[in-house]
Amino acid sequence: MFDQLSETRIFRGLLPSEIRSLLNGIHYQLRSYDKDEMIAYAGDVCDHLMLVTRGAVKGEISSMEGGSIVVSEIPAPNTFAEAYLFASKNNLRINIRAMMEAEVMFIHRDYLNQLMEKDNRILKNYMRIISNRFLIVTNKLNFMMIKTVKGRIAYYFLNMLTCHPEQDTVILKPTHHELAVFLGVTRPALTKNLNELKKEGIIAVDGKTVRIPNRERLVALIR
Amino acid sequence: MFDQLSETRIFRGLLPSEIRSLLNGIHYQLRSYDKDEMIAYAGDVCDHLMLVTRGAVKGEISSMEGGSIVVSEIPAPNTFAEAYLFASKNNLRINIRAMMEAEVMFIHRDYLNQLMEKDNRILKNYMRIISNRFLIVTNKLNFMMIKTVKGRIAYYFLNMLTCHPEQDTVILKPTHHELAVFLGVTRPALTKNLNELKKEGIIAVDGKTVRIPNRERLVALIR
Repeated sequence: MFDQLSETRIFRGLLPSEIRSLLNGIHYQLRSYDKDEMIAYAGDVCDHLMLVTRGAVKGEISSMEGGSIVVSEIPAPNTFAEAYLFASKNNLRINIRAMMEAEVMFIHRDYLNQLMEKDNRILKNYMRIISNRFLIVTNKLNFMMIKTVKGRIAYYFLNMLTCHPEQDTVILKPTHHELAVFLGVTRPALTKNLNELKKEGIIAVDGKTVRIPNRERLVALIR
Repeated sequence: MFDQLSETRIFRGLLPSEIRSLLNGIHYQLRSYDKDEMIAYAGDVCDHLMLVTRGAVKGEISSMEGGSIVVSEIPAPNTFAEAYLFASKNNLRINIRAMMEAEVMFIHRDYLNQLMEKDNRILKNYMRIISNRFLIVTNKLNFMMIKTVKGRIAYYFLNMLTCHPEQDTVILKPTHHELAVFLGVTRPALTKNLNELKKEGIIAVDGKTVRIPNRERLVALIR
């Protein structure tokens, strides 16, 4: 088990032997679940870190009558719902259910705090997990707030240029299909709008290289 | 200054005298800015916690030529960009500029770590800030992913029922205008769709009380 735990983001950089000795100093529970068994309900107070150690679990919005929508799938080894643990309102917003036979480790928040105090790497890993999640979701939200396809494309290119203010080209690594999914638009809409941006001289495309002669014109598209 | 700092979320629960003695043990910088002066640029590595101690600052997406869109406004006393500090990619995605005469305190990540190790309340406060931000943004994103007005209304009611699985009523505190803004829909579209939900018997409205006889029918609207 400790080999597997060392592959999780929360124990990143720690040896299995280090994880074993840290976990020996605290209390934790390991529980097994059958396929489709409920692990936690929306509304439950979330005061334990949950770590899938075997199988996979899913988060879902459900009704009292049994209908449900899966919002996330978490295979072992992985933590989930990390942000609830320290939030002001720490009631789960989703049900957690086993996707297959699964095992989950529960570590109470107070013991997690002890682990963070004992080993600074766990603190930094935890901060990194929540921070990365926040930035990914914020970025996704920024895209969704932009109503037009051209605006989303513009925001995508400006984002890529952010770290290189002196450059006027970006390399387009994803395929059109991948980019369309990422931007939340259809593939034909993406192609049509990229072609229009080319015609208008806002971008110049050469294979995977996209040149942006004038950032101002991209900024103007974000509305 | 320390009185003011005790009002920030990061130093919540600490006395001004405690903050003074903690800050005496580390290095930090205080810098003053004129109105419209740049504080940090998109692309900059963000390895200092930034705390507005006077005035107000804003985050903006800008072009090389000077156009810009304000994405956030932060009045003193307040921290901002907290999540960048511990993220894997810690380049700022936005410019930070003084909205008026302002003063900003900079604390390097390593010193912030020291503060967290010295006083567990700062650690918990920081976790709470990032976690709350994550959950707020996630919730907002969930709404934006739902394309229809009815779907957003349904998700809103289901969210409110989450913490009370035994209830079938919710109290609608916000006005129609506030709710429309929150859901990212127009006021007339909200009213029209609420009326349709009433007619279809999916909700029953009595003043501020909304009864949901069958959650299953709300879940079916989220697509």
